[in-house]
Amino acid sequence: MLYGAIEAGGTKFVCAVGNEKYETVDKISIETSQPEETFEQVINFFNKYSDEMTSIGIGSFGPINNDMNSSKYGYITNTPKLLWKDFDFLGTLKSSFNIPMYWTTDVNASANGEYHFGSGKDLTSIVYITIGTGVGGGAIQNGEYIGGASHPEMGHMIVHPYDDKAEKGICPYHDFCLEGLACGPAIEHRTGVKGKDLDSDSKEWDIEAYYIAQAVYNITYILRPERVILGGGVMHKEMLLEKVQLKYQELAGDYLEIDDIKKYIVLPELGDEAAIKGCYQLAERAISMK
Amino acid sequence: MLYGAIEAGGTKFVCAVGNEKYETVDKISIETSQPEETFEQVINFFNKYSDEMTSIGIGSFGPINNDMNSSKYGYITNTPKLLWKDFDFLGTLKSSFNIPMYWTTDVNASANGEYHFGSGKDLTSIVYITIGTGVGGGAIQNGEYIGGASHPEMGHMIVHPYDDKAEKGICPYHDFCLEGLACGPAIEHRTGVKGKDLDSDSKEWDIEAYYIAQAVYNITYILRPERVILGGGVMHKEMLLEKVQLKYQELAGDYLEIDDIKKYIVLPELGDEAAIKGCYQLAERAISMK
Repeated sequence: MLYGAIEAGGTKFVCAVGNEKYETVDKISIETSQPEETFEQVINFFNKYSDEMTSIGIGSFGPINNDMNSSKYGYITNTPKLLWKDFDFLGTLKSSFNIPMYWTTDVNASANGEYHFGSGKDLTSIVYITIGTGVGGGAIQNGEYIGGASHPEMGHMIVHPYDDKAEKGICPYHDFCLEGLACGPAIEHRTGVKGKDLDSDSKEWDIEAYYIAQAVYNITYILRPERVILGGGVMHKEMLLEKVQLKYQELAGDYLEIDDIKKYIVLPELGDEAAIKGCYQLAERAISMK
Repeated sequence: MLYGAIEAGGTKFVCAVGNEKYETVDKISIETSQPEETFEQVINFFNKYSDEMTSIGIGSFGPINNDMNSSKYGYITNTPKLLWKDFDFLGTLKSSFNIPMYWTTDVNASANGEYHFGSGKDLTSIVYITIGTGVGGGAIQNGEYIGGASHPEMGHMIVHPYDDKAEKGICPYHDFCLEGLACGPAIEHRTGVKGKDLDSDSKEWDIEAYYIAQAVYNITYILRPERVILGGGVMHKEMLLEKVQLKYQELAGDYLEIDDIKKYIVLPELGDEAAIKGCYQLAERAISMK
């Protein structure tokens, strides 16, 4: 018996199958080119395991339609990746594999992995934020996703500019949203250099930490999770986590007591495995939802 | 059989008893003076009904300790009302009435009333924000409160200043938090006039609407509720709701589709009754939690 997992990102799809212990048995990475081409490879991969595969957990880039009462449930919606806009992701997959599937966002899948197997495994409420090419967030409380009308779009929350001279962000929709100011490309836009090539003592990291800390702050005051986990490529920068922790404390003052900031704002334990592990667990859950 | 209800606000306590249909049978209002004095009157009121009262639902001003595993569960914590700081609210009540009690914040109680009996009664996820002397918010999804480590403190989320010349808010903890900029006393601080006496065509209402719209916006992107309900004294100002709806649309652009903004951002249906009705339902829930 195997669980299928798809981490569908904007640049690559990771497809994997795992056993009942959530151990990966096989895995491939596929370029996110255009839907027909990408899906041909996705389907070829899972075809090898169709006899043993009980269900598939999917975490997709978004925005997605996850309203089970909608005729467009399972679609990718208004993504800037125009080839994928209004693509029937789940329907395409279902036409090849008629098994239970769990459909959510990529960041919700990562949040689920960390919640069950990583930094959140002993807790009942966490938020996972990814800061990379884009910025997104997923929240889980008592095993359930936060999100009533649809999934959260935490990357687009408004943040306070770093100073009076702060330029607008690069989001085409919002002047001062988190993603537009804190995503990897925003760092490059401000400095002319990719984040990974930028000196560790650049003032830019204080700016970046300030924006991320505001996200953690607003999430804290709105959701009150037990832990906030910061993933994504930008967080690989050494010392950035510590800067975020310090900025958070500056912003919050002593209004809310956080026992130990180093345990409150953390990096993912599972690293890049969070989404796939999360998808295995979602695949398992899909069976009982059937 | 009667349910007890306490809406414990910073200026007054409303105590009530209601029947199984959640109809109020008796109700009093008590000044929030100091704990011993106020509680003497609270206990005298409920003593009249102690034979029939099955349980009590309580919504209190905060911050409160609502961690059932804490030795200070049921306490008011670091409130600026110093006489009430570290007061054992629930313990004091339990020493007179040994019946099940549900303990939450005043705004969570109002949210619960609207969720079950008001603007949210046909929905599965709402957020209720009160904008008055203070600002607070409560969120419910599938009947459960949002809040893992503790209750939300939505009033203290950071908002973006109205313009370059915008003064800091009046919150002693945070320069640019929602409460410090949007509560009733903040309006008076900026204009020298109480909100209710301020002309309806004052530019101040655009500023106020901008801050409230940002709160709705950030809540939308972080929680994705089906509806946001705006209560509290400041929202009594005519046209303010419409201004908030318009500002929200300006901020959000067309990134997220909200079918009908007039159904998304609304006033409470129950008005001042929301918290008490919510408390009756919490009292009922307390029995089965026992």
